[in-house]
Amino acid sequence: MPAALRSVALGLLLSVCPFLHADEGMWLFNAPPLEQLRVRYGFEPSAQWLEHLQHSSIRFNNGGSGAFVSPDALIITNHHIGIDCLSEISTERKNLVANGFLAKTRADELPCRSLELNVLASIEDVTARVNAAGNSESDRRAAIAAIEEESFTETKLRSDVVTLYQGGAYHLYRYHAYTDVRLVFAPEEDAAFFGGDPDNFEYPRYNFDVCFFRAYENGRPAPISHWLRWSAAGAKEGDLVLSSGNPGFTDRGRTAAHLAFLRDIVDPFILERIRRRELTLRKFAQRSTENERRAANELLNLENARKSYEGELAALQDPATIEEKRAAEASLRQSEPEPWQTIERALAADRALHVERRMFESAWGFDSALFSQARQIVRHAAESAKPNGERLREFTDARLIGVQSELLAETSTWQDLDARMLADSLALLLEKFPDDPLVRQVMAGKGPKARATELVRGTKLGDVEVRRALLEGGAEAVDASDDPMILLAKLVDERARNARRRWESEVEEPLRQAYAKIASARFRTAKSDLYPDATFSPRLGFGTVRGYVDEEGVTQPWSTTIAGLYDRAAARANAEPYDLPERWLARKGRVALATPFNFVAAIDTVGGSSGSPLVDRSGSMVGLVFDGNLPTLGFSFAYQERDGRTIAVHTRGIVEILRAVYGATGLVRELGASTNA
Amino acid sequence: MPAALRSVALGLLLSVCPFLHADEGMWLFNAPPLEQLRVRYGFEPSAQWLEHLQHSSIRFNNGGSGAFVSPDALIITNHHIGIDCLSEISTERKNLVANGFLAKTRADELPCRSLELNVLASIEDVTARVNAAGNSESDRRAAIAAIEEESFTETKLRSDVVTLYQGGAYHLYRYHAYTDVRLVFAPEEDAAFFGGDPDNFEYPRYNFDVCFFRAYENGRPAPISHWLRWSAAGAKEGDLVLSSGNPGFTDRGRTAAHLAFLRDIVDPFILERIRRRELTLRKFAQRSTENERRAANELLNLENARKSYEGELAALQDPATIEEKRAAEASLRQSEPEPWQTIERALAADRALHVERRMFESAWGFDSALFSQARQIVRHAAESAKPNGERLREFTDARLIGVQSELLAETSTWQDLDARMLADSLALLLEKFPDDPLVRQVMAGKGPKARATELVRGTKLGDVEVRRALLEGGAEAVDASDDPMILLAKLVDERARNARRRWESEVEEPLRQAYAKIASARFRTAKSDLYPDATFSPRLGFGTVRGYVDEEGVTQPWSTTIAGLYDRAAARANAEPYDLPERWLARKGRVALATPFNFVAAIDTVGGSSGSPLVDRSGSMVGLVFDGNLPTLGFSFAYQERDGRTIAVHTRGIVEILRAVYGATGLVRELGASTNA
Repeated sequence: MPAALRSVALGLLLSVCPFLHADEGMWLFNAPPLEQLRVRYGFEPSAQWLEHLQHSSIRFNNGGSGAFVSPDALIITNHHIGIDCLSEISTERKNLVANGFLAKTRADELPCRSLELNVLASIEDVTARVNAAGNSESDRRAAIAAIEEESFTETKLRSDVVTLYQGGAYHLYRYHAYTDVRLVFAPEEDAAFFGGDPDNFEYPRYNFDVCFFRAYENGRPAPISHWLRWSAAGAKEGDLVLSSGNPGFTDRGRTAAHLAFLRDIVDPFILERIRRRELTLRKFAQRSTENERRAANELLNLENARKSYEGELAALQDPATIEEKRAAEASLRQSEPEPWQTIERALAADRALHVERRMFESAWGFDSALFSQARQIVRHAAESAKPNGERLREFTDARLIGVQSELLAETSTWQDLDARMLADSLALLLEKFPDDPLVRQVMAGKGPKARATELVRGTKLGDVEVRRALLEGGAEAVDASDDPMILLAKLVDERARNARRRWESEVEEPLRQAYAKIASARFRTAKSDLYPDATFSPRLGFGTVRGYVDEEGVTQPWSTTIAGLYDRAAARANAEPYDLPERWLARKGRVALATPFNFVAAIDTVGGSSGSPLVDRSGSMVGLVFDGNLPTLGFSFAYQERDGRTIAVHTRGIVEILRAVYGATGLVRELGASTNA
Repeated sequence: MPAALRSVALGLLLSVCPFLHADEGMWLFNAPPLEQLRVRYGFEPSAQWLEHLQHSSIRFNNGGSGAFVSPDALIITNHHIGIDCLSEISTERKNLVANGFLAKTRADELPCRSLELNVLASIEDVTARVNAAGNSESDRRAAIAAIEEESFTETKLRSDVVTLYQGGAYHLYRYHAYTDVRLVFAPEEDAAFFGGDPDNFEYPRYNFDVCFFRAYENGRPAPISHWLRWSAAGAKEGDLVLSSGNPGFTDRGRTAAHLAFLRDIVDPFILERIRRRELTLRKFAQRSTENERRAANELLNLENARKSYEGELAALQDPATIEEKRAAEASLRQSEPEPWQTIERALAADRALHVERRMFESAWGFDSALFSQARQIVRHAAESAKPNGERLREFTDARLIGVQSELLAETSTWQDLDARMLADSLALLLEKFPDDPLVRQVMAGKGPKARATELVRGTKLGDVEVRRALLEGGAEAVDASDDPMILLAKLVDERARNARRRWESEVEEPLRQAYAKIASARFRTAKSDLYPDATFSPRLGFGTVRGYVDEEGVTQPWSTTIAGLYDRAAARANAEPYDLPERWLARKGRVALATPFNFVAAIDTVGGSSGSPLVDRSGSMVGLVFDGNLPTLGFSFAYQERDGRTIAVHTRGIVEILRAVYGATGLVRELGASTNA
């Protein structure tokens, strides 16, 4: 799930998830789905069983999950979660992302300075204390800060108060933090991300998306009392499996009307913009090798974002999604119609404002790093002169230093690329506002390309000293500036601010209030059946290992095999992104090709769940979550079991590849020590 | 110009071109721009000079131009015009498109059965006779048919009456037709189309877009009395050059309001659709080698179409384009306001209908070959039962056989591709009509992918015998059919027809009448300054060889060199589409690298001009037109000299490559025989 946590940026609202379908849910460890497990699977895990899983599970603070898998604090997660560390410790001579890594001895394990891993030690309900602090948002925030501070002082454990159920509950999570984390093993990226973007979110899949670390304390493997036993047999079709990880963000409380708004207005416009940007960038990239290099990263991001939004929109365009939501909310709506009406009014206002706000305030009409710097400078001058309480939220005292240091960082903007993107966004602006007098002023009598070139070539904002002078000179310097990008930012600022002001008062605030009312009504009526929206904190899920019939009518098997991987590489002539590393090709003869490799389970995960262990009834690890198929992209809004599937690497496949391709006998032995096959 | 003649499909209206900018114009051979050439260049070509050029120039009936370049009827044109012939005569063993061809002797020259070449023999003004026939469209058509028939019987020359100036004039063009045309030389496609789609419509360029044929009559080189002498020196910066070719289609009579409508409504929606289709197809192509093969052709078409429309839209978004049009039409509009008002009313109606008509009648919501067959079958049944005069125009008696044979042709539809494209278009339909009851029926309770799969898998229309039975069974069979695609076509048919009816009566007909009025008013007032819109018939253009400053502020040189070609290939590691054929790489040492290769001239050409010779004041050939840069994509609507440039292959470059790379000494000698360097 390279899109891990993407949707965090989308939403504002956390809320409760009132609709239980099948094996749905991201459950709290202190409110596990015992009833559901008993009724649906006849499975009654003990308190110790749950505690063991909780203490074996790990949160990766760069946005993923993992687990301890040996008494010596060996940790498994995904390659795409470990990749931040791999990049960090790579050198020009030694590219660990491309070439992988295997520590021959413990002494060879490589420290990752930036990683922090958390293991949930305890949960305490602090709702009463937070609520007692007062009703205002700032009262609550102060109470939360005090609780966290007090807990940390007392326990020396990382202490986070998590807001659950849209403020229906506040829980204090205490974590044991591991900061000395060392790399043990990583495969080549080509094997981990086999199939690249074309295969991302697809199934059948063939990814060795695996990475091993080890937690250290005081220079030795960290002493731990819980780790998952490794199932040498691994998952089998029809098995109940449970996931333990940190799903990042869901937004399942949105009303049916709100989902329709996303479907009809928000997502289509986002996609329109992504498609344009992607094709503009691709055209730029095609013109030279250097262009290709400059565009590569952003192109991957755009392809990934397009896939995510297309998947989300596909879920919303399935009539069942909104119909089920409508049916499920009917009775609550009937008993308390006011917030629903408020939401519909707010969405009508949002609809009327949408293009205006996106184009001007979100600056979709001004897609340029240089413009964005100009706007920051212009707004910084205006906002920093105001009392703290009256400023735009991103310019309050607490954030001002961040804005400044970002503006004063030595960045390099590629003028030609910036001009291309700006030109295309000005063209979009003209399409959306063809007869607009302000837009006419923006264009200054030129076409989009000519105008963009003039702006990008004319501005001096690429020079950090110029930015510094404007920042330090404040309003006076900004007023006096004749830099064309500053002039443009000033020209459109009032229009942008106005759209934002209206959106905040007519849309954002009414929505916040209405959703809070709905959430508390729901919480009052049906607390015990509820799980809260995902909050990138430890959760429990459950479901069955099984295939499905996809939307194109194809029956997809519960698992793939290693043979399938080699076949797919051969069918694509081992051409990128279907190219297997040399070592994989050379050692094919040693591999037991019929071994299960990737598999799917009908289980409720989203971005952030990457690296979650899947365990069987015995609590042994049988798979490692690394992705979801296309239909899971709709899981932000609603779980659906028909063809939404979590995709995992099979534990048998992991051991077979470690043995046959990497000769990682030490690692296999360490896992094997805990085998219960 | 692989987009040759594309815009024919766009427009309905031919009209006069009243605005003369600089070296603008596609002039008639019987009304050449003598005054302009004299005043601007002090050049006064004689009648013989013009006649010689006319008789040396060739129209390729597959959509391009060319010229005789030796007394033995040797013909030069572009590789991309010759490619139809190359494909036709290629065999599995001998791929002439990829590998090129050089006839060692005349006996080795390869016949192209499907080529017909025309040389304009004479022009006769038959306006009076056509007008005398009556006022109705059918009277005129009958008169034209009679004139053509009579002329052919009398002269045995191909005889076409060309409608010029929106019916302001009718000229009878008599052509000498050559039907025994043989291939003499073609380079490898990689050299002809070097840079592929990324470089298409761009400059600087490095294309050897050249092909030689020879016309035969009675088994011997056709006896001709006019051919262009070959300039060994070729074009030089600052030279006056004249083009002689067959520009395909322009539409320069549209009003400013109409251009704004294209800019704001028509082109953005076309581009939205192209972008979606391109990305959907690319995603499909990425999933397997076979998919890639299936999608390749359509992907190229889409990339090319996107570039064309983006270029056209860029021209329209340059405020100068519409402002100049508005200024130029002001006085005529003041003296005769009615047609302008009619056009604005019609465009308002078009705007209101646009999305409805595109999605339903143009079937943008049903992007599927199988759906399109279903609609043809449903409409065939309904229309063929009506009297001829009441039918939709594509089902009149004259066209009915065409419809039937198309439906009964053995075609193969790739189900999975058809389902993908249909799914994406259903998603677009949902975006445009989210709350529409008919669209809800279309979706039948499913999401776009699931519904598309159900339709494509469920229909039997892929079987030609099923289509035949429905076609022959008529309305009764269609009514009784429960084929899901037939049911869908029936479901949306009335809605689609209704949009079309309204568009024809509220938009098409009022526009036709209003433009006819404007054209005749213009023709009355300013006949002598006018050239008619392009009609894929022989025209004369003129302009200067010179570079330009592009919209990104880069100064582009008047010519490139062969060295630049090799450099560009090397910079891209000779990777596709920047890969030079082996022979080019091997013989680089023999090539005079400083030789001019491609060059630009500020001259008014459009699709169809491909292969036009450029001649100097002496009438010698100095270059071969093969493309225009991005700004020329706006030439459909208005010429602009600032940075719009025609791109040509330089005659020195042609000879140098023929000599050094291909060792084509015979060919060089034959060209050299007519050299006047």
